[in-house]
Amino acid sequence: MNDAPYPVIRLRPKAESRALRHGFPWVYSDELVTDRRTRALAPGTLARLEDAERRVLGLVALNPASRIIARMLDRDPDAVIDAAWFAARLERAQALRTRLYDTPFYRLVHAEADGLPGVVIDRFGDAVVIQPNAAWAEAHVEALAEAVVAVTGAEVLVKNGTGRARGLEGLAEETVLLQGVLDRPVPVSMNGATYMADLLGGQKTGLFYDQRPNHAFAARLAKGARVLDVFSHVGGFALAALAGGAEYALSVDGSAPALALAQGGAQAMGMSDRFATRQGDAFDVMAALADEGASFDLVVCDPPAFAPNRAALEAGLRAYERVARLAAGLVAPGGYLGLCSCSHAADLSRFRAASARGIGKAGRRGQILYTGFAGPDHPVLPQLAESGYLKALFFRLAP
Amino acid sequence: MNDAPYPVIRLRPKAESRALRHGFPWVYSDELVTDRRTRALAPGTLARLEDAERRVLGLVALNPASRIIARMLDRDPDAVIDAAWFAARLERAQALRTRLYDTPFYRLVHAEADGLPGVVIDRFGDAVVIQPNAAWAEAHVEALAEAVVAVTGAEVLVKNGTGRARGLEGLAEETVLLQGVLDRPVPVSMNGATYMADLLGGQKTGLFYDQRPNHAFAARLAKGARVLDVFSHVGGFALAALAGGAEYALSVDGSAPALALAQGGAQAMGMSDRFATRQGDAFDVMAALADEGASFDLVVCDPPAFAPNRAALEAGLRAYERVARLAAGLVAPGGYLGLCSCSHAADLSRFRAASARGIGKAGRRGQILYTGFAGPDHPVLPQLAESGYLKALFFRLAP
Repeated sequence: MNDAPYPVIRLRPKAESRALRHGFPWVYSDELVTDRRTRALAPGTLARLEDAERRVLGLVALNPASRIIARMLDRDPDAVIDAAWFAARLERAQALRTRLYDTPFYRLVHAEADGLPGVVIDRFGDAVVIQPNAAWAEAHVEALAEAVVAVTGAEVLVKNGTGRARGLEGLAEETVLLQGVLDRPVPVSMNGATYMADLLGGQKTGLFYDQRPNHAFAARLAKGARVLDVFSHVGGFALAALAGGAEYALSVDGSAPALALAQGGAQAMGMSDRFATRQGDAFDVMAALADEGASFDLVVCDPPAFAPNRAALEAGLRAYERVARLAAGLVAPGGYLGLCSCSHAADLSRFRAASARGIGKAGRRGQILYTGFAGPDHPVLPQLAESGYLKALFFRLAP
Repeated sequence: MNDAPYPVIRLRPKAESRALRHGFPWVYSDELVTDRRTRALAPGTLARLEDAERRVLGLVALNPASRIIARMLDRDPDAVIDAAWFAARLERAQALRTRLYDTPFYRLVHAEADGLPGVVIDRFGDAVVIQPNAAWAEAHVEALAEAVVAVTGAEVLVKNGTGRARGLEGLAEETVLLQGVLDRPVPVSMNGATYMADLLGGQKTGLFYDQRPNHAFAARLAKGARVLDVFSHVGGFALAALAGGAEYALSVDGSAPALALAQGGAQAMGMSDRFATRQGDAFDVMAALADEGASFDLVVCDPPAFAPNRAALEAGLRAYERVARLAAGLVAPGGYLGLCSCSHAADLSRFRAASARGIGKAGRRGQILYTGFAGPDHPVLPQLAESGYLKALFFRLAP
């Protein structure tokens, strides 16, 4: 595919190329000369990026329809994007994860920070789920898949095409089993708990590895505790708490299939008798629990992104405040409250303030014990770190 | 001491009392009516705080000489500050720590967030070090000491009066053995390493518990690694790395006594043969190591606060950048770099930017793997969380 040289695209005269030279991975649409020729290039086209003085900056993937119009793939403008190129990036990503984790269950590739813009890859032992969330990656998915198998030795390979970003890239939603046989959920051990990951039907890639360190912190608080896990998905915090010695845990989620997987995890742990689920709208269930006079030593809420973008920020912060208020009302005197946000737009400072407001409105007061982010298998580029999406705060509430 | 009622002090008419009612623990000097009578009160005087409409806000400790002119002690304006009052706060603080830690080695009281403004207490098994860094606490140190012994069963009690804050409170520098016998460093187990804490002669309270989770992360990166620990004190990151399987570790510090304690720790771990020290100015030693062509798989720098206050911010950030630049130059291709700041004034965003600039100036590029803060035995009030002092960033540098 490299028979013809890559087309050349060029920064506007006043566009700043210093950040790009220092590792910033994106070109915004207002920084690029977008003539008719450029606009006609298909999403995912590879192109040679030059600055206004025609100095070469590297090889980029272009998407004329996106605000992020180009993503840096390689400083070498003549790099050939083939299986060997992918394998080199995957080897480097895997070297980090094998240093960090004893077993091959982790996010193997976290997009830009691992040198593969828009590509997310999760590893579940012998099964690997690829999310090509950018047009260039979808166009090269065969080479990518070949490299994944070569580097990981995966027997089962899934392409999960449900990421929100795919719509922006003009890609269809589709989840495909690319290789192997997969007829049941995959058991995943984390923090002493067992989770059931449904790699073909689940949300995102079937399991959220990003919360691993925050699950671990919850487990430290859980000994002998009555635990409520709201927006529990497949039992993230609830099962970690059981592994940490919780007296019992209740998982609340809107999704019956997710709760069934959580039940499967509790069963695999031999702890079904200490685990219960309640299916329904999280806000409604929390209100109902309050009406019932329920009280828990540890409550954790890990809602979906209420503020995925700036337009949704104010409404999102109000939703986080409401979650905090309802959840704080369910915490026993002297108990613990964990609140999470996976919203890019709500930074740590805003999310913390919204959480504290909600706790205050519940008539409670607390200390912050812990501030956590996504685990180290979710690296970030320093230039993009400000918008790190996942935040977890754990409070101890006053008696 | 409660024979006479407490003197009354009052907020100015426009001073906002809402934050105080919601748990903000301080009154600034420009918020308070400071007539001649108030100014004449001795630092540490207990007083009844009212708002401008004479509604009672609580019992505060006054220091007319300080910008933080009053610190909230109790919502009950008639609270009696005696050993029983201290014991109640200590019990609550200890309940959190015994939930979090298997052995009694931790920060027992972290000032405002644990309801004891300006008071820091560290526990080392049967030995406890009290830092009364505010005038009111110094005035009540006997009742505090009595409560500490009652709650913890401590046999050895040290009053460490070397905190920087004491000067602002008009308190003398003095370290006193209040109870028991202490004739050698106390061995402390953390993250599988053994540290030697000199409770009478060391910096602060002899050991920094705050870095425990960040030490633990460094240990995860350390297997088979050649490790450099700059500003090592008693071997914080170096010994954790050895416990994590490092091939060897080199501790650099300006203090010979601190390095001797680090050696003692390595010896207690049976790992002296994998441990070395170099005493000297950290910047000079890093430059010398670069001249020698030295290279390490993991470099960690935990310098003193370069930006302890706003006036020192710009110079402090330049110092952090310089540390990052020198340290990055010593990291082997594909290796890891941990950078810490304990500066209140340099918030996470600024510290991260300074670190990234330094890494860039060394001609290197990196991913951020981990952002850590002080451990959960260092709780913070939500209202003061923005200025959380300790930050640790771990980068992986590109080959």
